[in-house]
Amino acid sequence: MIINAAQMCELLQGELIGDGDRKIHGPSQIDKGIPGTVTFLANPKYEEFAYTTDASVLIVSTDFIPKSPIQATMIKVKDVYGAMMFLIGRFSKNGIPKPGISKLAVLHPDFIEEKEVSIGAFTVVEHEVTIGASSILYPQVFIGHNSTIGKDVIIYPGARIYPNTIIGDRCIIHANAVIGSDGFGYRPDENGRYVKINHVGKVILGNDVEIGANAVIDRGTLNATEIGNGSKIDNLVQIAHNVNVGENTVIAAQAGVAGSSTIGDNVRIGGQVGIVGHIRIADGVEIQAQSGVTTGKFSAGTRLFGSPAIHYNDYLKSYAVFKQLPDYMKRIEELEKQIAALKANSI
Amino acid sequence: MIINAAQMCELLQGELIGDGDRKIHGPSQIDKGIPGTVTFLANPKYEEFAYTTDASVLIVSTDFIPKSPIQATMIKVKDVYGAMMFLIGRFSKNGIPKPGISKLAVLHPDFIEEKEVSIGAFTVVEHEVTIGASSILYPQVFIGHNSTIGKDVIIYPGARIYPNTIIGDRCIIHANAVIGSDGFGYRPDENGRYVKINHVGKVILGNDVEIGANAVIDRGTLNATEIGNGSKIDNLVQIAHNVNVGENTVIAAQAGVAGSSTIGDNVRIGGQVGIVGHIRIADGVEIQAQSGVTTGKFSAGTRLFGSPAIHYNDYLKSYAVFKQLPDYMKRIEELEKQIAALKANSI
Amino acid sequence: MIINAAQMCELLQGELIGDGDRKIHGPSQIDKGIPGTVTFLANPKYEEFAYTTDASVLIVSTDFIPKSPIQATMIKVKDVYGAMMFLIGRFSKNGIPKPGISKLAVLHPDFIEEKEVSIGAFTVVEHEVTIGASSILYPQVFIGHNSTIGKDVIIYPGARIYPNTIIGDRCIIHANAVIGSDGFGYRPDENGRYVKINHVGKVILGNDVEIGANAVIDRGTLNATEIGNGSKIDNLVQIAHNVNVGENTVIAAQAGVAGSSTIGDNVRIGGQVGIVGHIRIADGVEIQAQSGVTTGKFSAGTRLFGSPAIHYNDYLKSYAVFKQLPDYMKRIEELEKQIAALKANSI
Repeated sequence: MIINAAQMCELLQGELIGDGDRKIHGPSQIDKGIPGTVTFLANPKYEEFAYTTDASVLIVSTDFIPKSPIQATMIKVKDVYGAMMFLIGRFSKNGIPKPGISKLAVLHPDFIEEKEVSIGAFTVVEHEVTIGASSILYPQVFIGHNSTIGKDVIIYPGARIYPNTIIGDRCIIHANAVIGSDGFGYRPDENGRYVKINHVGKVILGNDVEIGANAVIDRGTLNATEIGNGSKIDNLVQIAHNVNVGENTVIAAQAGVAGSSTIGDNVRIGGQVGIVGHIRIADGVEIQAQSGVTTGKFSAGTRLFGSPAIHYNDYLKSYAVFKQLPDYMKRIEELEKQIAALKANSI
Repeated sequence: MIINAAQMCELLQGELIGDGDRKIHGPSQIDKGIPGTVTFLANPKYEEFAYTTDASVLIVSTDFIPKSPIQATMIKVKDVYGAMMFLIGRFSKNGIPKPGISKLAVLHPDFIEEKEVSIGAFTVVEHEVTIGASSILYPQVFIGHNSTIGKDVIIYPGARIYPNTIIGDRCIIHANAVIGSDGFGYRPDENGRYVKINHVGKVILGNDVEIGANAVIDRGTLNATEIGNGSKIDNLVQIAHNVNVGENTVIAAQAGVAGSSTIGDNVRIGGQVGIVGHIRIADGVEIQAQSGVTTGKFSAGTRLFGSPAIHYNDYLKSYAVFKQLPDYMKRIEELEKQIAALKANSI
Repeated sequence: MIINAAQMCELLQGELIGDGDRKIHGPSQIDKGIPGTVTFLANPKYEEFAYTTDASVLIVSTDFIPKSPIQATMIKVKDVYGAMMFLIGRFSKNGIPKPGISKLAVLHPDFIEEKEVSIGAFTVVEHEVTIGASSILYPQVFIGHNSTIGKDVIIYPGARIYPNTIIGDRCIIHANAVIGSDGFGYRPDENGRYVKINHVGKVILGNDVEIGANAVIDRGTLNATEIGNGSKIDNLVQIAHNVNVGENTVIAAQAGVAGSSTIGDNVRIGGQVGIVGHIRIADGVEIQAQSGVTTGKFSAGTRLFGSPAIHYNDYLKSYAVFKQLPDYMKRIEELEKQIAALKANSI
């Protein structure tokens, strides 16, 4: 979307002050404004930048009265934040692939095209795959056989979907994410050498799930690894086989969940957290970054920290003492000396 | 493989009880049985589900006598677990690419096709590459020049093999894994700015090695980074340049080994473990998840925990006290008061 | 580069001792020398291997006098290390793609070819992309629209560059790295369900930046995520949205930086380190592997360790006591007994 200030003002039903011809191709921050962009003044703390920003258009509240001249074309609106979110949503659609199937994609002959689907060059779709209306497969994507992709899904370049995967509506899969790889399961043979346990389960993503770049979700051994509706998984996260993640749960970058664990709804998992296998994390639990959770005994809503993780405040209190341990050590030694002296005296 | 119950019974040389016409396309768990699948009762703990499962076929032991009617077609066999492993192995072959080379792959003209090799669309094979019989390169794979791939190897979509790599027989490389990237090596110039050290070594994987999705193995500086026969590396693992991993060692997801370290045979490395560079981990060492190993002084078979890692039991004992540190602190303060009082009295 | 010993000697302006016809295709380490390679004796510690190495050519210092016969052809030079670096640089160019654009690449019709650019098969370049002279895009790369790639850049197979990215001169992007993916940003709606915050910013890499395999750099919300000149980022690293990394900073494998943090110049970040969002790391700070940094209060050049991270030496001192905590616990209990006894006596 490239739009001029007057057209933008009309979209926002605002009041235009200044040059309506300025062309805008995207947004910027008020303190780092760039010519050709729109910025906004929502937080009074940033007012100083309104007078100096290089952005071409500045969106302000209807009650804003400048104390000095403003270079930018102003658009006054009732809800600055809402206007900005609306514009950013519009700009974020810039350059998204158009519906249609590239002649350089390889689709199995049994593929039935839904309306408004976009499939890019060098993407491969195996047999018995269904892709819902208005979904976008960027170039260089792989969809294994017998998979079902919902409506309005976006799959970025290089994402690999192993066979039998089910992806709900409005999911977003970022570049180079892998969904449905084998679980890390082996059994020792009579000589102690590892023999692969075949994984024939699948992965099921609910609706509105987002999977970050280079994240990996392994498929179940027999049944499914599942991610519930609305859950969001960040870059480089590992979800092992047979894991079940509830709804509206967020898992930050580089965290990992080991096999067969169950994560409740509305759980918040920090970056680089590790969760061992075969435990259950209750709803609403909040796990501080880098923690290692080794038990499912914590009740709903608990906040955790440490490796192994304990209650958040308990960890902080213990860690505060940890930092002073050399001093405490000296105090213990001092006590021992004093006691020895007292005992010598009392004999 | 789609097969009906009677055919399955014949394959297993079992005894059929019920409808032999039911069609089966895969396995499922007894407590989450799905119509059209086969499940099994191996552990008596799960017997209750035998009466309620929705799976179409149930495999039981020859000596199993139901206490209530069973909906599923039953197949009685001597070795339930063995039968199930056999069937899962069969189902896991479903939809695997057939031998043959896609016309949309790009192979260097010097490539000599071995029998039964499969190479998918949009895969690139550079010059002087050898691929052993019955190996499968999925679509969208990259094999750099002068690489040697063994027999019966599977390389999933998007895996990238840098030049000069050697991969043994029966290896499995999962989607988007990278093998042979440059080591992270720089030297400061006279102004302290980093200058890249060129890496011209290679990666050598032994036989029966498995590399997880999005894992990375850097190549050696001059010689090779090596992974020994039968070792298994999980998703998102980092193996740095010049590392040497022994045989039958397992490295769980998101662990990392820094440059030039040597890992023995039969080592077990947990998820998110970090191992510093230039140390040696003895055979059979077991490292608890999230630990950080900073020294090679531990003897064979030691179990480690913590960051920096110490003996597993020592870490647990220290951590048990750590959790009570605020209490101990108070006890020290109380002791100091009492000593002060005693000293005052004794004067 | 395949070259014989005599040609190599001429390149190095050295003195040849032995068979000049031996063909050399690469370098190797002296203790693991391989026929057909060149090795070098720079460190006297390794002299014993000079007499036994299987390498075909051995580069030694002009003043080296062998104590026993040497199998390898020797080349005597003034600066052994410099000669080796020169040769390795030459060998590292082996098999690099030649200039030219593959007919199997998909370029937008608006693409203007700079001289000496190489673009491989199955690479996709969207509209309004500029690629500087002598840059190499390997096969299977994706470059989103409106991106600018500098001169002498190398982008390895499977790297994904989202739209609007700016990449400086001489950058190296390793296989399957992702640059410009969405930040992990959501806001709760009135029912507490997460709504995606659109990210319309970009990523800017300075000159001489290297990004490791499977690393991820998210784009900014409105403005840019930036990596400064000469900074080096290892495999599997996560850089979140709006992060600003200074110049000549190194970030080792599997480390992560959360959103909107600023990292100074010449910072050294160890493997698996985590840095929370919205803090500032001062210039020259050195962060030990696996540490978790939660505050920006540390001054330039500080060395950090622990999670949460504190001064490096303080952490080591506290951890030394931590390892003895069970003993200290017993000493406290012993003190309590003795005090009780003293009090009983003194009554």
